[in-house]
Amino acid sequence: MELLEKRILNDGIVKEGNILKVDSFLNHQIDIGLMNEIGKELKRLFADKHVTKILTIEASGIAIASIAAQYFNVPVVFAKKAKSQNLDGELYTSDVKSFTYGKQYTITVSKKFITEDDKLLIIDDFLAVGNAMKGLIDVANQAGASVEGIAIMIEKGFQEGGKYLRDNGFNLQSLAIVDSMDNGQIIFRKQ
Amino acid sequence: MELLEKRILNDGIVKEGNILKVDSFLNHQIDIGLMNEIGKELKRLFADKHVTKILTIEASGIAIASIAAQYFNVPVVFAKKAKSQNLDGELYTSDVKSFTYGKQYTITVSKKFITEDDKLLIIDDFLAVGNAMKGLIDVANQAGASVEGIAIMIEKGFQEGGKYLRDNGFNLQSLAIVDSMDNGQIIFRKQ
Repeated sequence: MELLEKRILNDGIVKEGNILKVDSFLNHQIDIGLMNEIGKELKRLFADKHVTKILTIEASGIAIASIAAQYFNVPVVFAKKAKSQNLDGELYTSDVKSFTYGKQYTITVSKKFITEDDKLLIIDDFLAVGNAMKGLIDVANQAGASVEGIAIMIEKGFQEGGKYLRDNGFNLQSLAIVDSMDNGQIIFRKQ
Repeated sequence: MELLEKRILNDGIVKEGNILKVDSFLNHQIDIGLMNEIGKELKRLFADKHVTKILTIEASGIAIASIAAQYFNVPVVFAKKAKSQNLDGELYTSDVKSFTYGKQYTITVSKKFITEDDKLLIIDDFLAVGNAMKGLIDVANQAGASVEGIAIMIEKGFQEGGKYLRDNGFNLQSLAIVDSMDNGQIIFRKQ
């Protein structure tokens, strides 16, 4: 998606350790106009899918999932990263090793909100090694829901998450794929 | 807001310890249509304010802040609850004692995204003792930004957060105020 690639080139900051900071428009401050353009693009990409629910994970995925959900006219469910005393009852859980935070956590989704009748579009902001996404797919599988598509804002093409998902037959659409960030220069994969 | 009160009566679940679960439409599964009606109502309530940015806190505040931001045509900034290696540079920080989670945490906002020129609308899903809100106001004060208004989906009127904010002159608009939940019966304050 050209609009997103341009924004990444203009406002993204490459940091040591292959970190791409997009906190000025995507995951700390959020440009809602851009999110709407992304929402429209996701509807175009998944127009032939009968999505019943959008699944994402707190926190950065919630904004784009919520805006995009308007174009699909479906609810959003976000997986939680910590058990709270407010989230009881029957839960789907999956363990995720975080690349960004360098530690393990458990994601939880209430069984009430994903069922075998659901056709899910899973949305997240970043895809790198893919551990969070594997956790979300695991939750979908536990529920018996189908994964109609996976939408990622920024895929780090030099890490293995995207290849894993494509090799396993998922309909993965990454709006921008960064193939390298060597010396701070961002190279996008042609799509 | 009648629509929200009706939804709370229909789908909210009162649990022991004065917990009101609204996870079927507000803070785990999210009804985006309802969020849009809430967004329109917030624009009506704060129509005379020149809001430049909406400030919220992860995770539950992000969905409503993002949808509402469309009616104000401004960006969203969400305060983070944990330091990550991706969130470096100059930060505003404030310590918050969580009523829900029963522990203390630090909220952080990058200094890049709130400045003394900003006129903030602060949005959150719940207001109870008000500790998270005090943290967000502290961040706004550190930045020298003005707090034009505070919008809450559900205020627990039997806890002290709302009184504190009104006594201190804040323009607080709570779309539903629960005055009691004794024996599982939800009583709203007339507004």
